[in-house]
Amino acid sequence: MAPVATANGNTHTPSIPETLKKVEVVKDQDVQADMDPSKLTIKLADKLKAIPEPETLVFGQVMTDHMLVMNFDAESGWSAPVIQPYQPLQLDPASSCFQYCTNVFEGMKAYVGPDGEPRLFRPELNMARLQTSVGRVALPPINPEALLVLLKKLVSIEKRWIPKLPGYSLYIRPTVIGTRAALGVAASTSSMLYVILCPTGPYFPSGVSGISLLAESESVRSWPGGTGGYKLGLNYAPCFAPQRIAAKLGYMQILWLLGEDRRITEAGAMNFFVVVKRDDGDLDVLTPPLDGTILPGITRASVLALCEAHSPATPLPGLSPDLKLHIHERTITMPEVVQLHQSGRLTEAFCVGTAVIVAGVSRIGFEGKEVKFSMGSDNQQYVTAALANRLEAIQEGRFEWQGWSVSCN
Amino acid sequence: MAPVATANGNTHTPSIPETLKKVEVVKDQDVQADMDPSKLTIKLADKLKAIPEPETLVFGQVMTDHMLVMNFDAESGWSAPVIQPYQPLQLDPASSCFQYCTNVFEGMKAYVGPDGEPRLFRPELNMARLQTSVGRVALPPINPEALLVLLKKLVSIEKRWIPKLPGYSLYIRPTVIGTRAALGVAASTSSMLYVILCPTGPYFPSGVSGISLLAESESVRSWPGGTGGYKLGLNYAPCFAPQRIAAKLGYMQILWLLGEDRRITEAGAMNFFVVVKRDDGDLDVLTPPLDGTILPGITRASVLALCEAHSPATPLPGLSPDLKLHIHERTITMPEVVQLHQSGRLTEAFCVGTAVIVAGVSRIGFEGKEVKFSMGSDNQQYVTAALANRLEAIQEGRFEWQGWSVSCN
Repeated sequence: MAPVATANGNTHTPSIPETLKKVEVVKDQDVQADMDPSKLTIKLADKLKAIPEPETLVFGQVMTDHMLVMNFDAESGWSAPVIQPYQPLQLDPASSCFQYCTNVFEGMKAYVGPDGEPRLFRPELNMARLQTSVGRVALPPINPEALLVLLKKLVSIEKRWIPKLPGYSLYIRPTVIGTRAALGVAASTSSMLYVILCPTGPYFPSGVSGISLLAESESVRSWPGGTGGYKLGLNYAPCFAPQRIAAKLGYMQILWLLGEDRRITEAGAMNFFVVVKRDDGDLDVLTPPLDGTILPGITRASVLALCEAHSPATPLPGLSPDLKLHIHERTITMPEVVQLHQSGRLTEAFCVGTAVIVAGVSRIGFEGKEVKFSMGSDNQQYVTAALANRLEAIQEGRFEWQGWSVSCN
Repeated sequence: MAPVATANGNTHTPSIPETLKKVEVVKDQDVQADMDPSKLTIKLADKLKAIPEPETLVFGQVMTDHMLVMNFDAESGWSAPVIQPYQPLQLDPASSCFQYCTNVFEGMKAYVGPDGEPRLFRPELNMARLQTSVGRVALPPINPEALLVLLKKLVSIEKRWIPKLPGYSLYIRPTVIGTRAALGVAASTSSMLYVILCPTGPYFPSGVSGISLLAESESVRSWPGGTGGYKLGLNYAPCFAPQRIAAKLGYMQILWLLGEDRRITEAGAMNFFVVVKRDDGDLDVLTPPLDGTILPGITRASVLALCEAHSPATPLPGLSPDLKLHIHERTITMPEVVQLHQSGRLTEAFCVGTAVIVAGVSRIGFEGKEVKFSMGSDNQQYVTAALANRLEAIQEGRFEWQGWSVSCN
């Protein structure tokens, strides 16, 4: 996808919703039932779980009391949605989800707003991306609007699970899996959609002052014509063995490189940014383009929009209103990062994603050397901090911005 | 992996078992129980299913009465194996197998030999490859020898399901899935191994005189540094949407290309071969090398070995004993295939795999044109037929060859 120039001279690849239109989805609404929130059945758990102390939470390990479930089959379409007690799935061992990995998911978060009500962050973008994901692995299409209605209902029911501490939230995991029970190598004509929830705190343990990354070019996470641009479960399993090696070498995540020019794609499962000082005193904010090898992250798109909006009228917190941030979605190679660092122009690097929100990078290991970033007190990480503060304020409903935070009521 | 020259001048990449040693597997046998066939429990079904007429079988849709199951967890290791009635799996919705696609499988076949006993084809190679696969997605290691003992036991119990018709067999699907019930993006520390079986006939419907392939370079199945060289479920889901487009255009499978030179990797989920006439009257048999972008197929390795063994002492059926077959594991580009075809030197193309065994290619669509092959009566597909006949005879125990066919008793 070729970058296009915007009015202010920034380079831009098309926004998420445009990117998402690429996959054809076919729906025969004459014979198949659509997702229908009006048919929702709610079966509440007889006994509710005790809610753990927020400080004891490890990401993704404690699930709430209830889950949303719907099934699709080619004859009847979508079944009536059910909110039911959290429980195991029962599936044929030949199912596509086990055999051929026809599995997709989304990551979202719910926050308690100042009014005490749960809020979601730009949830329509997650629903649109989920539609693209199911299309990429030839699963039956979903109904994004109907699913969002149901998801809000589930979050409202589980409201007591949302921790009230700053930086805490309820993580939401919509999942769609192929349920065709046959071994023939072909698309799954049936599927199960479910949504599960878990309370969560900061993704990385407290005391971590920045993410350490190991730049890796031998294992390749994604490539042109592959699936790196879609949120598919299958993009994750190949990363675990390399990640173990990185951890042994003392790095928290891998910075995935691609090709002979060693261009940067993603950091762990996060989008990657660098901040570069310009000769005119402004800052360039660089991130790899949506060329199909990286996830079209919703936090990524939001960070770009917030940088672009930084101005005397709507300044980011802690940044000089007169400082200009020039965003560029373009290829960044690891040798270029090294060279920018050596020249003293590379001031910050940070990672963004739903789980981590915005987190600064402390160092990058590359070919036996390290690119180190000054963190914290000396003000070097001030764009990172400004974006993290603003995004968290928007997500928690403390700062209203362009309707990004949506009430579940 | 660099090709090495063999004594007879053929180029060779290392054989499967050597390739498989690349992934490190760690096993703490002091604290974790190993797979132990002596602990096997057998719970037979109360009522056995009716066995369908072989002619009505569709690949992978009818499962036998029983399955083998074992579970691994980090504390206790492998549970005692159980052969139990075929039944649904019960799994937590947060399990790695659904979320991050930590799923691997193998494909094998059992045949009834002339002695009436079930036989497997080079099963130790499937077990070794399965070990490599679990390592690649950071699942706990298996015990290949123990698993083979258990698998033979399961096949013996299900012996009545093996169709007695030529070309029919019992398809065996060992599967390992990650069962860690947590959403943190990390390796699955627990897993479930199960083996399911289904009776099967010829993979493609009768009346098909050859496989039609659409050469595809926009969607890319695998990449250097990716996972194409491992038998992972996640290599399959991304192929289904492109496969649908190929089917709409009248092609049975996709011929996957890679890179600007449009080199051939795999055909559908099969390894690909071409046969080329030489100036000296001999034949070159070409197939892409094991460079990490294609599956190290067991049928592929067997076909190469059978071609190399073709000689006056051990001729392939229907081929002149004096004809020399020169095997070459080397890059083949689609433009080269077109050029060889135009020169009249390209005599055959065929696909190999466990399900299909050896099947001739009738045509390849590429950039709006077609490369067509003469099939059948005019003897053009005689290497393909010779290999198919010999392999099937070995697999069915009618022709003894280097211990490749192994009794389950």
